[in-house]
Amino acid sequence: MSIERKEVGERMSQAVVHNGTVYLAGQVAIDKPGTDAKTQTEIILARIDKLLAGSGSDKSKLLQTQIWLSFMQDYDAMNEAWDAWLPEGTAPARACVEARLAFPKYTVEIMVIAAQ
Amino acid sequence: MSIERKEVGERMSQAVVHNGTVYLAGQVAIDKPGTDAKTQTEIILARIDKLLAGSGSDKSKLLQTQIWLSFMQDYDAMNEAWDAWLPEGTAPARACVEARLAFPKYTVEIMVIAAQ
Amino acid sequence: MSIERKEVGERMSQAVVHNGTVYLAGQVAIDKPGTDAKTQTEIILARIDKLLAGSGSDKSKLLQTQIWLSFMQDYDAMNEAWDAWLPEGTAPARACVEARLAFPKYTVEIMVIAAQ
Repeated sequence: MSIERKEVGERMSQAVVHNGTVYLAGQVAIDKPGTDAKTQTEIILARIDKLLAGSGSDKSKLLQTQIWLSFMQDYDAMNEAWDAWLPEGTAPARACVEARLAFPKYTVEIMVIAAQ
Repeated sequence: MSIERKEVGERMSQAVVHNGTVYLAGQVAIDKPGTDAKTQTEIILARIDKLLAGSGSDKSKLLQTQIWLSFMQDYDAMNEAWDAWLPEGTAPARACVEARLAFPKYTVEIMVIAAQ
Repeated sequence: MSIERKEVGERMSQAVVHNGTVYLAGQVAIDKPGTDAKTQTEIILARIDKLLAGSGSDKSKLLQTQIWLSFMQDYDAMNEAWDAWLPEGTAPARACVEARLAFPKYTVEIMVIAAQ
């Protein structure tokens, strides 16, 4: 079974597809660093939409999602964007924990596994 | 390949099955919040048993497990419940790190990927 | 579909293979605890090489990688080892967050999913 990669960098690829399963890199709000958690989440989810589309998938096919928040007090703000984005009846398995991220300008990171 | 979901909420599903692989949501001790780490782990593992059963799997088919502890000092207490629960010779790949969870009443969270 | 496990312990297995996908346990620098982050990462990556070889895979087939650093200030040191190790054009999806690990003598932990 072959491996397909999208937006391949030297350190990570943004999407990797194998055996009908799509693995995205942890996404942060690269377009709007330092904004509030809801805005960062919206930017991230739009980025996830784009990466999934480029991998023959979409947000109705999410399998597992991990969410890291630098500050758990942002839980409701993140969920506001998340709940609005998710198509009804298609919610993935999910875990959300608090963790500092690689750069302080980002306070939300989301990594997903999806079906093709 | 179809996607099957169990206990589907607007925010997450508790189990998602695709291509013979079962993804469970991060489980916390919803029945006994605020109890000690061993008790919370036992509650979580019973919940995982139930979710796997509903997805055509069981604890002898775990592939990967992630464990988050709010306080790493609970490592031994969590493992006491974990070791007692796991059938001999079937241990999954595992990682356990410290992280604050969404609600302080929970201090253990476990997320698994299993085979069907 | 069968499940193959390598280095099976009572608590975790170091590698689990199912349906052409290899799940490794979170690896730490068991040979060199307490060393700097770059050294720990090199030890971990050599260990991952060995575990993947034992599972019919190799580092050019990584799908998803999670990296935990006890101290995010080690980000560049970890990446120095990571970037040198990874074959060009084969980078996996990746997320790296800060988290305390089970034992303070380890400050880097890496868990991968790979294709066989």
